[in-house]
Amino acid sequence: MQGGARRGRPGHDLESVLRGAVKVFNERGYDGTSMEDLSGELGITKSAIYHHVTGKEELLRLAVNRALDSLFAVLDDVSVLDAPAIMRLEELARRSVLLLVAELPLVTLLLRVRGNTPAERAALARRREFDTAVASLATQARDEGDLRPDVDPALIARLLYGMINSVTEWYRPRGGGRPAELAEVIVSVAFDGLRLKP
Amino acid sequence: MQGGARRGRPGHDLESVLRGAVKVFNERGYDGTSMEDLSGELGITKSAIYHHVTGKEELLRLAVNRALDSLFAVLDDVSVLDAPAIMRLEELARRSVLLLVAELPLVTLLLRVRGNTPAERAALARRREFDTAVASLATQARDEGDLRPDVDPALIARLLYGMINSVTEWYRPRGGGRPAELAEVIVSVAFDGLRLKP
Repeated sequence: MQGGARRGRPGHDLESVLRGAVKVFNERGYDGTSMEDLSGELGITKSAIYHHVTGKEELLRLAVNRALDSLFAVLDDVSVLDAPAIMRLEELARRSVLLLVAELPLVTLLLRVRGNTPAERAALARRREFDTAVASLATQARDEGDLRPDVDPALIARLLYGMINSVTEWYRPRGGGRPAELAEVIVSVAFDGLRLKP
Repeated sequence: MQGGARRGRPGHDLESVLRGAVKVFNERGYDGTSMEDLSGELGITKSAIYHHVTGKEELLRLAVNRALDSLFAVLDDVSVLDAPAIMRLEELARRSVLLLVAELPLVTLLLRVRGNTPAERAALARRREFDTAVASLATQARDEGDLRPDVDPALIARLLYGMINSVTEWYRPRGGGRPAELAEVIVSVAFDGLRLKP
């Protein structure tokens, strides 16, 4: 009972350590962060961190897998919708923006992963799997006559998510506007373009 | 004469050191790269590097300023075109893609700068200045009735460059397609959208 309470103390439970580590990784870069840095920034001993994880690699793995699990959950939710592929692609884009804003630090970390370690390479492999699923949905939308046929669906997937993911570069939770409105604007800009239609 | 020849030897002149350093920064992250790492990866002594620069911070400054100078040169070229603002904005986007592809390692490094050091903060300040100029051009295009009026021009600038900059994440010089075609596709997708017009 007492042991459980101690493990759950704010700043020392796995959740707090993970959130804190993600913040430090995003600020200093994962490669540039040592366990000493984490210990100093989180204000807890290294042994308190090792109580939960084997090292910074496991913290990265837990963090990026959480972001990836959420992205794949959105993909699953959208895939069962009874709607044309273009509507499902739009809904996927919309929910991706909302997820990104809700889990900004986790997704930011995921998008900065470069592939220097096994955990990073595993994350990149899952990202590619996600991109392939988006490209497949874009192919369906094109085959149904709703998406422009002159651009490779894989390139469409990349450009769409390039726009969506750029939100991590500038969105600030305070003063960043309502997430639902932002999601609508991004979907509208991506699917209808910037030009005013005559 | 001999001294000049020695300084110009491949791998030891400033240009080679700079290009090599950019590659290492992009692979390991700037924060995670020490002068020892640079020396090891470039296969030259630290004193050979210090012959040209005061340290890794100066290498970063030189590299990102080169990318920024090129971006501002494109902006200047486009600003004097005798054409509606929307055409100038399109041309800016097109030439930005071409620049990005031509100077992929330099622009990749610029886009990963986070602001932990004076050189990084100076680069972020110049990036913001560039974004402001794009937003101003978007405002003109909106006022001329060519760009959708329902989205804040600053957000338009961010989303447009989000799409353009994402090219650094996946473009590979070999097998990445012809740069001019890629630029046309990106301009067309950004301005006209993904949806097939009826």
